[in-house]
Amino acid sequence: MRVAGKSYRTIWINDAGFLSVINQIKLPHVFEVTTLLDVDDVCRAISDMIVRGAGLIGAAAGYGMWLAAKEAPTNSLASFNSYMQLQASRLQATRPTASNLAWAIKRQINQLELGHTISEKISLIRAEAQAIADEDEDFCRRIGLHGLELIKILASAKPNKTINILTHCNAGWLAFVDYGTALSPIFAAHDAGLPVHVWVDETRPRNQGASLTAWELESYGIPHSLIVDNAGGHLMQHGLVDIVFTGADRVTRNGDVANKIGTYLKALAARDNNIPFYVALPSSTLDFSLDDGVAQIPIEERSGDEVRIVTGKLIDGSIGSIQICPDRTPARNWGFDVTPARLITGLVCERGVCSATESGILKLFPEQIK
Amino acid sequence: MRVAGKSYRTIWINDAGFLSVINQIKLPHVFEVTTLLDVDDVCRAISDMIVRGAGLIGAAAGYGMWLAAKEAPTNSLASFNSYMQLQASRLQATRPTASNLAWAIKRQINQLELGHTISEKISLIRAEAQAIADEDEDFCRRIGLHGLELIKILASAKPNKTINILTHCNAGWLAFVDYGTALSPIFAAHDAGLPVHVWVDETRPRNQGASLTAWELESYGIPHSLIVDNAGGHLMQHGLVDIVFTGADRVTRNGDVANKIGTYLKALAARDNNIPFYVALPSSTLDFSLDDGVAQIPIEERSGDEVRIVTGKLIDGSIGSIQICPDRTPARNWGFDVTPARLITGLVCERGVCSATESGILKLFPEQIK
Repeated sequence: MRVAGKSYRTIWINDAGFLSVINQIKLPHVFEVTTLLDVDDVCRAISDMIVRGAGLIGAAAGYGMWLAAKEAPTNSLASFNSYMQLQASRLQATRPTASNLAWAIKRQINQLELGHTISEKISLIRAEAQAIADEDEDFCRRIGLHGLELIKILASAKPNKTINILTHCNAGWLAFVDYGTALSPIFAAHDAGLPVHVWVDETRPRNQGASLTAWELESYGIPHSLIVDNAGGHLMQHGLVDIVFTGADRVTRNGDVANKIGTYLKALAARDNNIPFYVALPSSTLDFSLDDGVAQIPIEERSGDEVRIVTGKLIDGSIGSIQICPDRTPARNWGFDVTPARLITGLVCERGVCSATESGILKLFPEQIK
Repeated sequence: MRVAGKSYRTIWINDAGFLSVINQIKLPHVFEVTTLLDVDDVCRAISDMIVRGAGLIGAAAGYGMWLAAKEAPTNSLASFNSYMQLQASRLQATRPTASNLAWAIKRQINQLELGHTISEKISLIRAEAQAIADEDEDFCRRIGLHGLELIKILASAKPNKTINILTHCNAGWLAFVDYGTALSPIFAAHDAGLPVHVWVDETRPRNQGASLTAWELESYGIPHSLIVDNAGGHLMQHGLVDIVFTGADRVTRNGDVANKIGTYLKALAARDNNIPFYVALPSSTLDFSLDDGVAQIPIEERSGDEVRIVTGKLIDGSIGSIQICPDRTPARNWGFDVTPARLITGLVCERGVCSATESGILKLFPEQIK
């Protein structure tokens, strides 16, 4: 995507041979590129959410494994491999819910089996990191085209009228290497001249909707309105939402979706009001080993201070924080919830749209049939 | 309720003959009593939410009519009455959704018919304002006792285990003259020695849960945890909520409930997880003239800046604000939504618990049978 006239991905190998990432903690108030020098930096960037979003943390883990390989001991293959396994575990521990992280790390661990010399292995890992990122971009672009067809159907049913799309959290290009998932069809619809308007859930506690989705949509010139997470049900009751698109952090083989906390509530409201609810994801988000999302997907619990303290722009333009509750109020903070497949109209993947069922998913991904 | 060892109602006639109210904009960081000198002050206090909550804005309107009567022209009954009608309209226009406001104003307008002299009318209006407030306190106390019976049933089903109660917004004593509605059964359960724990929705955009409910519960010594509004569905899916209590701003004769935006989403999640969902209200919140909440209850839309800008305590201890979105992000801000009666397990009123149906409500209030 273009920012101030220049094209960016969210993560890339810079000229100095390290990683560059867009610092998502500082957006929307400051656009800043941060350098990650080693795998420690990558772990911290993922934990602290300098990089966040299903696809981007997968790509970051892929590149992180390359930084790890560059700094690994080279005295023996055994010590190289054991260092890489250790770093893989550390990267894996940064965030438990998104499956893209495990998926990217596994791809890199597979590279350790290939190549005869350490130097060959490092080259393979670098190429694989690049491939993970390129594939993410390509898959997200395709998701946009498949999702566009869904929006076109709505547009043909109400010609020349605004198509109101609700989204939760940020599943735009900032959450992936480029294009995004939930927002990719919206970018494509805008490019195709369709009159879309986006209801942007602010997405407490970290406000990725207010800070990142609103920023992406404004930069792209797409009409949108920020709303509190509480508002979606009211909008749906009054005919003000035509379709919902969200992203996903992990999707089970039967179509249960772990996504940002609050997604489940919007899916319930969409079902209660007969509004199509689509989840957009690249295949790297599918976890074919699970078949009961509520019971099996680990849900990250983060610091209660993310609930108690809100960060933003102070009156003087600097970035600051405020506490919204009494000094001693305890808070709990789960990062995700699981939307049961029964509430989901369909999944939008790089290969097309399918029902949120095992048979639907396996029609698109027949190589996963057991 | 007691604050720092002293008993308070939320509104009272002070020694100087004006109104005193607890300033709810400053809580939880500062406890401050604000004086309202005239009906203008009362209108502003309601609009700006210095006083808020269904019962309290009813009581404030009742007292506001008395302040209006004291400052009304006394040259003729006609000009006195016409001034009072004008002030009634102004008070009514401050907030459109809660029915307690219209109900209290109507009670005062009825007083204008009684009494022969202006001075008699002023006395009647003062007495009626006091009666409205006293009745609100008494009804809320009774609601607590009826709701306590529901909690006792849950407690007997899981002896010695914590009863987890979820609530949205603030329907505690600060939202009424005393006791509150949703929180009144919780205060009563705590007094009765039952082990309750409350999940406190922060309640964006104005954070009445984080600022007022958390403060009330801490002051009363009741275990509680602050959560974002997005979290309730996840908690319910995992068996962490035993019952939901919310307040109401208007309830139709068939049991549809207008309450703080987001209530509908929690009711959907409660239904999806077979969790009892109760709405607590005094009869002043019932609007027997309506029978379709979604279609008929006017929903207030407030400034988008309430979404864009969050207020709280800065690091230096002062109260300040931050902006959570890009400078030009437009926001929309509806204050309430309507939960259809079909999602509500029961209504807890001053006369007892009934189903959220016309027949259930009319069994408690047979005088309203047409």
